[in-house]
Amino acid sequence: MITIEIKAPYLIFLGGEVGRVYAKTGSGIVDWRPELCKGQMNFVENGLDLGLPNMNIDEAVAAGIKSFVIGTASVGGGIPEQWLGVMEKALEAGLDIVGGVHKKLNNIPRLVAAAEKSGARLVDVRVPPENIPVGSGEKRSGKRIITVGTDCAVGKKYTALAVERDMKKLGFNVDFRASGQTGIMIAGSGIPIDAVVADFLSGAAELLSPENDHDHWDIIEGQGGIFHPGYSSVSMGLLIGSQPDAFIVCHEAGREVIGEWNGFPIPSVEQVIERTISIGSLTNKNIKCVGVSVNTSMLDDQGRVSFLSSLSKRVDLPCIDPLIDGTEAIISNLL
Amino acid sequence: MITIEIKAPYLIFLGGEVGRVYAKTGSGIVDWRPELCKGQMNFVENGLDLGLPNMNIDEAVAAGIKSFVIGTASVGGGIPEQWLGVMEKALEAGLDIVGGVHKKLNNIPRLVAAAEKSGARLVDVRVPPENIPVGSGEKRSGKRIITVGTDCAVGKKYTALAVERDMKKLGFNVDFRASGQTGIMIAGSGIPIDAVVADFLSGAAELLSPENDHDHWDIIEGQGGIFHPGYSSVSMGLLIGSQPDAFIVCHEAGREVIGEWNGFPIPSVEQVIERTISIGSLTNKNIKCVGVSVNTSMLDDQGRVSFLSSLSKRVDLPCIDPLIDGTEAIISNLL
Repeated sequence: MITIEIKAPYLIFLGGEVGRVYAKTGSGIVDWRPELCKGQMNFVENGLDLGLPNMNIDEAVAAGIKSFVIGTASVGGGIPEQWLGVMEKALEAGLDIVGGVHKKLNNIPRLVAAAEKSGARLVDVRVPPENIPVGSGEKRSGKRIITVGTDCAVGKKYTALAVERDMKKLGFNVDFRASGQTGIMIAGSGIPIDAVVADFLSGAAELLSPENDHDHWDIIEGQGGIFHPGYSSVSMGLLIGSQPDAFIVCHEAGREVIGEWNGFPIPSVEQVIERTISIGSLTNKNIKCVGVSVNTSMLDDQGRVSFLSSLSKRVDLPCIDPLIDGTEAIISNLL
Repeated sequence: MITIEIKAPYLIFLGGEVGRVYAKTGSGIVDWRPELCKGQMNFVENGLDLGLPNMNIDEAVAAGIKSFVIGTASVGGGIPEQWLGVMEKALEAGLDIVGGVHKKLNNIPRLVAAAEKSGARLVDVRVPPENIPVGSGEKRSGKRIITVGTDCAVGKKYTALAVERDMKKLGFNVDFRASGQTGIMIAGSGIPIDAVVADFLSGAAELLSPENDHDHWDIIEGQGGIFHPGYSSVSMGLLIGSQPDAFIVCHEAGREVIGEWNGFPIPSVEQVIERTISIGSLTNKNIKCVGVSVNTSMLDDQGRVSFLSSLSKRVDLPCIDPLIDGTEAIISNLL
């Protein structure tokens, strides 16, 4: 399979961060994949604690760690000069370095030189693999769910991860499929769909959820929004290449305008369902919506209950806040 | 404007071709933009004649030519070793070299060296310009038509060029906007939309037809097909970023399956109209279909007339073969 692959276990590098907000990637990995995380490294005294053992490079090597994962985003998305020393040391010790920051690891000569010397890899999770084919549209075995959104940043990744977790608990054979940088670092593999050249978008989506066992479910992280003036074509390519059997609409209660795109109202959940079915049916005639996942953090408890129940009546589907309710209601409806 | 720009006039380089079929690009440029073509160069005795004066590099320079345009595709899309000498000579004389072949000019060290020395450019029309922004969806002044298709290779470029020609004849202020490599070489500028990174697709389409005078028309070359399993997301991004006021559906009479994608039937013209309006209305509420352009080369004369008139009745729009009928009927309907 042509996807980015990250070797486990990980040493989560937290740079000089002291607040979790800038270490979302690191804490996301620890939250969703604790079994992959064996250590953390701070660059300051009293740095952030994700609950992992603090390790230096030698200790990480002794613990069998394979990847040095940059779990923080410095302001501007760069790699500060003062990180390079410890990164070189990690590379010399044979650890891969994995980063999703804007500045590409493979464009930093000191790191490239150290990696070449030891054979360790510099894994830029924002850079898609090469040789992605054009989408074929051919039917693949196995079953697929995708999360779609009324906008960007409405919980598509979170919902997909929660569905994976909850289906696993119920004994299903299931995999989260990451289409964005943070998701890839959590899952340990995936393709950054929005960085793929346009001609190969649906082809990349096809690689992301390859043929599988008949009873296997891929839970695919959606991107963008099908009514988004900037990103809708990314959503469309991912949808068509994924050929999903089912989808979950993700939404944020109270959001009325597409984030940073004033003048573009958030589409209704019904509009997103209708459009997703009409486009998705090109590669899967039986595509259907199985539920709505709502971020209700803007509402109080009473507001949340009434929002979800009125939406559920309107669309005749289970509507949940995955953070509070879990996703079992949607999974039951799926099955 | 961030687009590829080719300096005119051109010397059309025909390599060793003796048949027009491999020199489609060169003959397309001469057909549609004779005023930009001042000379031709063959690499063999009795080579192809596009009706231009034969010139060597010195003669081209003396004639004021600015670009050496590769008007032929060698088998495999490469640049044969034996072309490099004359190309170096062209670069040394200050001519840009312009190519749409697969092999990138900028990856050929001998050419890069010669270009650096003289300051001439190597223009790979398959490589999009840098710094393309994400699409904003903001309304731009001026008017726009786009050609869309029931499939790839159904005459979207040809139709757009024919509409530009016919509207010009009628005195309109109009520009063809090229979104593919051959179109860019004909127009002398444009963006190869399918080579843009997915996140920036609609942003690239926005750059391609920038703000303009109120009574100015951009005639935008479409790409792919909105029901195409491989390329529909390219079509969608181009459509949304173009925010067209009007569109023309292009179709080939008799084609029943998406080219090379067996199992995917060609959508009906009605389906393409409905889907294009529903998607295009995100950035232009007044989008409408103004006609259908059909390649009827598979039909005899009687078949052609009956096909077009029955389609015209079905969709209640002017239906023409642009090669035979011209596009005036569609232009009248537009106005």
